[in-house]
Amino acid sequence: MYSQVLDREVSMTKSIAADSDHLDVDADGATLRFPALWLRDNCPCVECRDPRTGQKFLGITDLAEDTAVTAVEQTDTEVTVVLGPDGHRSTFSRSWLAGNALDDGDPGDGRTERGKRLWLADDLRGRLPEGSWADYLADPAERVRCLDAVLRQGFVLLRDVPCEDGAVRDVAESFGYVRETNYGSLFDVRVEATPNNLAFTGLAISPHTDNPYRDPVPTLQLLHCLRNAVDGGETGLVDGFRAAALLRAEDPEVFAVLAGTPVPFAFADADTALRADRPLIGVDPAGRIREVRFNNRSIQPLRLPYQRIVEFYAAYRRFAELLVRPDLLLTFRLAPGDCLIFDNTRVLHARTAFADTGDRHLQGCYADLDSLISSLAVLRRKVDA
Amino acid sequence: MYSQVLDREVSMTKSIAADSDHLDVDADGATLRFPALWLRDNCPCVECRDPRTGQKFLGITDLAEDTAVTAVEQTDTEVTVVLGPDGHRSTFSRSWLAGNALDDGDPGDGRTERGKRLWLADDLRGRLPEGSWADYLADPAERVRCLDAVLRQGFVLLRDVPCEDGAVRDVAESFGYVRETNYGSLFDVRVEATPNNLAFTGLAISPHTDNPYRDPVPTLQLLHCLRNAVDGGETGLVDGFRAAALLRAEDPEVFAVLAGTPVPFAFADADTALRADRPLIGVDPAGRIREVRFNNRSIQPLRLPYQRIVEFYAAYRRFAELLVRPDLLLTFRLAPGDCLIFDNTRVLHARTAFADTGDRHLQGCYADLDSLISSLAVLRRKVDA
Repeated sequence: MYSQVLDREVSMTKSIAADSDHLDVDADGATLRFPALWLRDNCPCVECRDPRTGQKFLGITDLAEDTAVTAVEQTDTEVTVVLGPDGHRSTFSRSWLAGNALDDGDPGDGRTERGKRLWLADDLRGRLPEGSWADYLADPAERVRCLDAVLRQGFVLLRDVPCEDGAVRDVAESFGYVRETNYGSLFDVRVEATPNNLAFTGLAISPHTDNPYRDPVPTLQLLHCLRNAVDGGETGLVDGFRAAALLRAEDPEVFAVLAGTPVPFAFADADTALRADRPLIGVDPAGRIREVRFNNRSIQPLRLPYQRIVEFYAAYRRFAELLVRPDLLLTFRLAPGDCLIFDNTRVLHARTAFADTGDRHLQGCYADLDSLISSLAVLRRKVDA
Repeated sequence: MYSQVLDREVSMTKSIAADSDHLDVDADGATLRFPALWLRDNCPCVECRDPRTGQKFLGITDLAEDTAVTAVEQTDTEVTVVLGPDGHRSTFSRSWLAGNALDDGDPGDGRTERGKRLWLADDLRGRLPEGSWADYLADPAERVRCLDAVLRQGFVLLRDVPCEDGAVRDVAESFGYVRETNYGSLFDVRVEATPNNLAFTGLAISPHTDNPYRDPVPTLQLLHCLRNAVDGGETGLVDGFRAAALLRAEDPEVFAVLAGTPVPFAFADADTALRADRPLIGVDPAGRIREVRFNNRSIQPLRLPYQRIVEFYAAYRRFAELLVRPDLLLTFRLAPGDCLIFDNTRVLHARTAFADTGDRHLQGCYADLDSLISSLAVLRRKVDA
């Protein structure tokens, strides 16, 4: 796709309009149009941007409202626009202009459904996105593959992470930073005598996202299996984006109710009183699915007008029914050494019940997607170089 | 208000309708209505909720769609509803029902404009929300006052925090957790020889929020002044919620353009490649202002259809003009020992230029509002007890 754009440039004609609130660049019969103000705001010259950081020196109020293209000069590789009223000269490479064409499939930040590979359980059963910890450490290309799986598919399973206390922190710090919470910087998922959360019992836990009562919610969760010598205690994952997309396809009005209703989530114990009012399905301003937040345990009484409560409950039920559909629920068993890294804004996790007396111990922590995606991009630069 | 509700209860009549998809509770001529399913979902009994954690055992799919009130029993203080089809008995105190009346001014999680005290510079000039570090440490009521200022007004200035390296971490850990980023767990704001950010120069910085290229963005920032022996280097704060509310009042269409346009923010250096596409004004599903994200330095080329770019730039200019209006910009000078804690999703910060050779050193870190608000709520419990 990009090379097609480059091919077009070679035959780019000289027909560029001037004295205008925009610049037209004809290429192969297509016209790329850029507003004069957009060009001025994106000027790459050293007066406009710090060459060390790429940061802009100028804000929008430093740029004239009547910015216009007053002249155009060009070579085979570059276009220089002279921009009134002050006559500032901005030079852009043709390839940069082609690569930043307006309305041309900008991939965005990869966080909405648009940047994802949505899945049903059958798509991944028996072929989980996985890698070995040793390979992950040794090979940047393998790290790229594993981290990309978290970004695109919502999770990766790292095998043979040493069964040592704190090893999950090493995994988190291989791509980002641990997010400390009231559960500690690391937490232990095992049966406790006086649990402050049902996670720390042997009860079955239905598909959910963690910490819905936090805003910002931790966007990544890591769970490292140290021991799992119990009957039961199987792990389940659901692609919440796929479930939400199915809901929208089957019943757009129900989807709209969930995207449009802030739900009060709360958690309290002796030292904590957290609350966040956020919808079960979060969409970006363009309506794209960006976040799923689902946890029956911590939803507080909704206090909306009567009819909206009735609509919400019907919608909540529809979504919950989808989330337990067998074709969506991917189940597998964590073995000692397995470390699951998953997107807590997208992938719901669950576990089957196990005996309170059993020997099951996971160690977990939270982290954030933004740093993982940054690490992935930096690694890609190195691998591609 | 609450005592009025309690007064009503005393005269609550016995007229409760049964065999219905809802419960009506008449009180002083007013009727409180609750859907049967809402009652079932919020049942406080030990079969439905873990008495240790308050977490619900049941999900919506465990509750019958045709849940109905089949009988009602009551005392002066409690109402027991028998709920079909399974005959589950749920007992609620009258005061709990009155306190959870539908559509009755639920305060929400305090994060939107609804929970805030918006301000103009004149409202706070000469009377900044502030406290001394010694009093903050010694007196829980003083801690409540200071943390409440962050929640309601967007910032507090703590005085006389020891001018020691790392003291800002103590401040953050007094209410929450440090959020580590690519700038470190702590960072130093002073002139650097090879800055990776304009913050680390002597340049003026216009009002902005930090880390707009992160999602989740750090929701709190702390800046602790260690030295400020320079001409210039004054601090400015703007209430971004007030500015956004003014924009909405003056020009709702411009407000809608900003709330509806994801803006690509990015930051890159040798070790980092962050990007987040988020609107300049974030609203909750009910349209209430919940987040302002504004930083001219890191906005990347927008790639929208031509006309939307033109509309965005006009709206961006309008908002930027508002943000530098003198009546919005609160300026003051940080003295050594001052530690500013501010809501990075609401309050924009700025500084005037200072000489590169001057002796100005702030130490900062990021943290998150959810933990601050939790600490505030727990402290309130103790202070009120």
